[in-house]
Amino acid sequence: MLTSRRTIKVEWGDCDPAGIVFYPRYFAWFDAGMMALLERAGLPKRQMIEDHGILGTPIVDARAKFMIPSRYGDEIVIETMVAEWRRSSFDVRHRVLRGEAVAVEGSETRVWVAADPARPGGLKALPIRFRESAAA
Amino acid sequence: MLTSRRTIKVEWGDCDPAGIVFYPRYFAWFDAGMMALLERAGLPKRQMIEDHGILGTPIVDARAKFMIPSRYGDEIVIETMVAEWRRSSFDVRHRVLRGEAVAVEGSETRVWVAADPARPGGLKALPIRFRESAAA
Amino acid sequence: MLTSRRTIKVEWGDCDPAGIVFYPRYFAWFDAGMMALLERAGLPKRQMIEDHGILGTPIVDARAKFMIPSRYGDEIVIETMVAEWRRSSFDVRHRVLRGEAVAVEGSETRVWVAADPARPGGLKALPIRFRESAAA
Amino acid sequence: MLTSRRTIKVEWGDCDPAGIVFYPRYFAWFDAGMMALLERAGLPKRQMIEDHGILGTPIVDARAKFMIPSRYGDEIVIETMVAEWRRSSFDVRHRVLRGEAVAVEGSETRVWVAADPARPGGLKALPIRFRESAAA
Repeated sequence: MLTSRRTIKVEWGDCDPAGIVFYPRYFAWFDAGMMALLERAGLPKRQMIEDHGILGTPIVDARAKFMIPSRYGDEIVIETMVAEWRRSSFDVRHRVLRGEAVAVEGSETRVWVAADPARPGGLKALPIRFRESAAA
Repeated sequence: MLTSRRTIKVEWGDCDPAGIVFYPRYFAWFDAGMMALLERAGLPKRQMIEDHGILGTPIVDARAKFMIPSRYGDEIVIETMVAEWRRSSFDVRHRVLRGEAVAVEGSETRVWVAADPARPGGLKALPIRFRESAAA
Repeated sequence: MLTSRRTIKVEWGDCDPAGIVFYPRYFAWFDAGMMALLERAGLPKRQMIEDHGILGTPIVDARAKFMIPSRYGDEIVIETMVAEWRRSSFDVRHRVLRGEAVAVEGSETRVWVAADPARPGGLKALPIRFRESAAA
Repeated sequence: MLTSRRTIKVEWGDCDPAGIVFYPRYFAWFDAGMMALLERAGLPKRQMIEDHGILGTPIVDARAKFMIPSRYGDEIVIETMVAEWRRSSFDVRHRVLRGEAVAVEGSETRVWVAADPARPGGLKALPIRFRESAAA
């Protein structure tokens, strides 16, 4: 299954006064993991934006369970995989690993959107046309 | 039911290249809404930290559904309420309103934690002792 | 002189493990103050983007002096004023006030930019055409 | 001279609606570069916090010049070096490189602070005691 893995060193500015990662940061890392995954799938967002007028991959549903807090200086691995591709949306799963332990689990649903020619300033969902290899 | 409401003007730096709010920002606003709610409940975090050695209210579960994107300059209302208080954890619900419409719905579970004297650097859950009036 | 003032309550997520505001947050507040100022000057960025193809007001120089740290729960006032308007750039000054005390002083230089038709993906500086009243 | 270098891929969430890095992000990267540098100097902040009661390295002066904007997907290098060590403060310089070009230049002054036993909740500057090798 398509998976992206990234090792992150938790920075001082990622943490709150309790000394642990301020949890919205995990969602930012999940977002970056999702983007890395799309690149691996042959769907680099930057190119899709330029070639297909895609404006983004907004999230419609996000969830996370937080089991183990991480602190400044900790090394964590963000592991992201696509759980299901659908016509104009897809499900993504994330795990934050500290060594062997799963520190955070995340899941999300995304859609591809383009500018809606019928409504200035509006967005519309767009079917994904991905390469054969992306589904392998 | 205890509720906090805050009007936020979406800033340039809250938005991504698609021109819409980068979704981790909603979780940061939810976090601030939760804090405001605790103050209204007679549990100001700053005082609890100073008086009771509480280190924070880490989240154990977070979820959000994103229905309507918001853009730079939009005014949104973050509405936060406690859905259930338990001994050492509580459930919180959030709604992001654009006028009458619900743009984002969120829910989360939090625990109160203090430094664990048994494990240097460790955290332990702490029962909440709130004032009578907080439950009203 | 044109001035914008905004009262901000320092949030938990604005602070670092030392319990004080993580300093890049001040620059984000300065950015928001600058935008509020442009609106007061009759130059709302959102409208300038839509009407004039302006892509943003990137900063070319930023500076800040940090005198007094602020903590979670503190109320601070972000005061922003334009120090000088020039043809395609302008200087902005910021002060963060805690009561009567100046906690942070900032200054910056900004330019208006539009998409450069000569270079796809490029940006070019754009002269500001502001209303008479804006200079008052 | 002690230098830290880190390659960063600009993420979607680092950028604003103009499609370029929201400039406070550079200061967050500078902060992380400074921390990495302290580790290389034998002054890992996490250990200094635990061993010496140091609460942080707050900034007293920050400056940056922005020459070239960066966009989602760009690879940039954050280069950080100490320009001068003094008794309880030090100067740091940063450069953001895009290939051979300098995209952003930064400079800052930092102090080491500890909790001030004379003022509950207060901070005081602390002389740095670094290893001989750190000055090499």
